[in-house]
Amino acid sequence: MNIIEGILNKDKRAAARLITMMESNDPEAIRIISKLYSHTGRAKVIGITGPPGAGKSTLTDKLVKRLRRENKSVGIIAVDPTSPFTGGSILGDRVRMTDLYTDSGVFIRSMGTRGHLGGLSKATLGAVKVLDIYGCDYIFIETVGVGQSEVDIVKAADSVLLVMVPGLGDDIQAIKAGIMEIGDVFAVNKADRDGANRTQVEIEMMLDFNHSEWKPPVTQVVALHNKGIDDLYDNIQKHLDYLEASGKLIEKRVQNSQLEIIDLVQRDLMERLVGNKEKQEEIYQLAEQVANRQVDPYTVSNSLINKMILNNNL
Amino acid sequence: MNIIEGILNKDKRAAARLITMMESNDPEAIRIISKLYSHTGRAKVIGITGPPGAGKSTLTDKLVKRLRRENKSVGIIAVDPTSPFTGGSILGDRVRMTDLYTDSGVFIRSMGTRGHLGGLSKATLGAVKVLDIYGCDYIFIETVGVGQSEVDIVKAADSVLLVMVPGLGDDIQAIKAGIMEIGDVFAVNKADRDGANRTQVEIEMMLDFNHSEWKPPVTQVVALHNKGIDDLYDNIQKHLDYLEASGKLIEKRVQNSQLEIIDLVQRDLMERLVGNKEKQEEIYQLAEQVANRQVDPYTVSNSLINKMILNNNL
Repeated sequence: MNIIEGILNKDKRAAARLITMMESNDPEAIRIISKLYSHTGRAKVIGITGPPGAGKSTLTDKLVKRLRRENKSVGIIAVDPTSPFTGGSILGDRVRMTDLYTDSGVFIRSMGTRGHLGGLSKATLGAVKVLDIYGCDYIFIETVGVGQSEVDIVKAADSVLLVMVPGLGDDIQAIKAGIMEIGDVFAVNKADRDGANRTQVEIEMMLDFNHSEWKPPVTQVVALHNKGIDDLYDNIQKHLDYLEASGKLIEKRVQNSQLEIIDLVQRDLMERLVGNKEKQEEIYQLAEQVANRQVDPYTVSNSLINKMILNNNL
Repeated sequence: MNIIEGILNKDKRAAARLITMMESNDPEAIRIISKLYSHTGRAKVIGITGPPGAGKSTLTDKLVKRLRRENKSVGIIAVDPTSPFTGGSILGDRVRMTDLYTDSGVFIRSMGTRGHLGGLSKATLGAVKVLDIYGCDYIFIETVGVGQSEVDIVKAADSVLLVMVPGLGDDIQAIKAGIMEIGDVFAVNKADRDGANRTQVEIEMMLDFNHSEWKPPVTQVVALHNKGIDDLYDNIQKHLDYLEASGKLIEKRVQNSQLEIIDLVQRDLMERLVGNKEKQEEIYQLAEQVANRQVDPYTVSNSLINKMILNNNL
C-alpha cells in the first residue's frame, strides 16, 4: 500500500496504518507526516476530559452524531491511559460508541500509552496530524482517566470540553481545582440527577476567578437522552469562532507547537540515555552505587550529561 | 550560619535553610548534599497518598504521634501540587497538624511545585536527603492531590501507605485502578461511615490480582478518633521489616535512585534547552513556523538536538 497516496485519497486503511506506525515509533511514519505536514492545520481539534464516570464517551458519541448531521467528517482518538505498573488498559465504556464504527464519515481509534518513555503524546499528536491530513473536519481527543493526561490534552486541542457530573461532592473539589483552568467549554452531564444546578453554580463561581476575554459557558446535558446536546454544540462552535475571530487560534497553536517541540526533544534525549539494554544496564549500575551511598545522584547525573554532550556517544 | 556544621548538630534552622536552597535551585545546596550524602540512607521513608478528602493529614498526624511515643524523630514533607496554570497552591487541611509544630522531635515542611520545568521531585527528593542527614528516623511524604504526584511519590518512599475512604463510589474505580499498584499498606479511613467493610473487600479483591510475595494489609481506621492507628502502625512496621529481611529494601532504593538519576539528567537537559529567555524565544519562533505549517515539529526537534549535542552550545 502506498500510504501517502492512500491517505491523500481518503483511504481509511492508509490512515489507520500510518497511526499504527506512529504507535510503534517507526521512523518512516515521521518521514511521511513531515512530507505531508503542509496538509495539516485545517481540522478543528476538540479535547474532551473530566473525571471517570462523567459520561464522556456517551457525550462524544452524541456530539459526533450532531456533527454528522452537518455532514462534517470526524476523527475520534480515545486515549486510554495505561498503568505504568501492570501494563493493563482501562477500556471503560468505549463500547457505547459502536454504532459510529459503521459510519464511513467517522474514524475511531483507541490509543494506549506505550513504553516506559511515555509514548502517549508523541503517538497521539501524530495521530491528530494523520487524521488532519486524511481530511477530518473535526478531531475529538477523548481521555479516560484523571491526571496528567487531562492536562496534557491541552497540548493538542484547539478547544477543551470539560465534562462534570452532579454529586461528585466536596471531596473532589481539589481535582476540579486542578483541571478547571483547562476547560474552554463546560458540560454538566447527567443533569437529571440531583444537584445539577448546584454543580453548575459551583463551576460558574470557580470560573469567576477567570478574567480572560472568553468566559467558558456551562451547559447542562443528559447525553444518554440526547438532551442539551444542541446547546452544548452551539457553545463549542462559539468558542471555535471566538478563537478564529480573536486571533487566539494561531496563538494557541503556537503554544501547543512549543510544547510539542520540547516534548520531542526531551523524548529523543531520553532515548539516547536509556534507549537500549546496554544503556539501561549502565544506569542501573550507577543507581546501585547511589543506593549504596558510594556516590550521590547529582554527581552521577552531571557525568552522564557531560558524556552525552561532549562525546556525543549516547 | 555554617549549614554543614548546623545540620550535623541537629540544628533545625540549618535543615530548613538547606531545603529552601534546594527549592530555589541553589547549586550550593547540591554541593552540600553531595558532600554529606554518605550520611543518608538511615531514615525510613513512608509515602502517604490517596484521593482528596481521605483524611491523609489527620492520619499522618496520628501516625507521627504514635512514633513520637517510641521517641522516634520524624520529618514530614507535605507536597501541595501547584496548578501549572494559576500558580495557586491547594493547602487543604494542613492546619490540623499544628500541634506537631511545637514538638522539637518533629520537622514539618510544606512544599509546592516550582517553575515550569516541574521542580517538584528534585526539591522533594532533596528535602528527603536533608532530613535524612539531619537525623530523622522516619520521613513521611504526604501528597494532597490525585494524579501524577501520587505515582511519583513512589520514587522517594520505601513504603507507600494508600489511604481510601468508604463511599467514593464506582465512579472513581478508575482512579483506584491507576494507583492501587503503588500501595504497600492500605488504610480505609473514616471507617465509621457506611460502606467501610465493602470498601475493604473491594480493595482486597483488587489486591488478589497482585501475586508478589508481600500481600498489602488493609486496615480500617478512624484517624479523627485515633481508632485503629496501632494496627495500622504495626502493619507499616511489618512492611518495613519485610523489606529489610527480604533484601527488597535495597532493591527498591536502587530502582528509586535510577528514577532520580534519569529525572536529574532530564531536568538538566531541559534547563539547557529552555533555561533562559533567549532560548525560550528561539523555541517560540520555531513554534510559530510549525503552527504556520512552514516546517514540521519533527524536523525542528532534530535540528535542536543536533545543535545541542554537536556544538555543545545549548
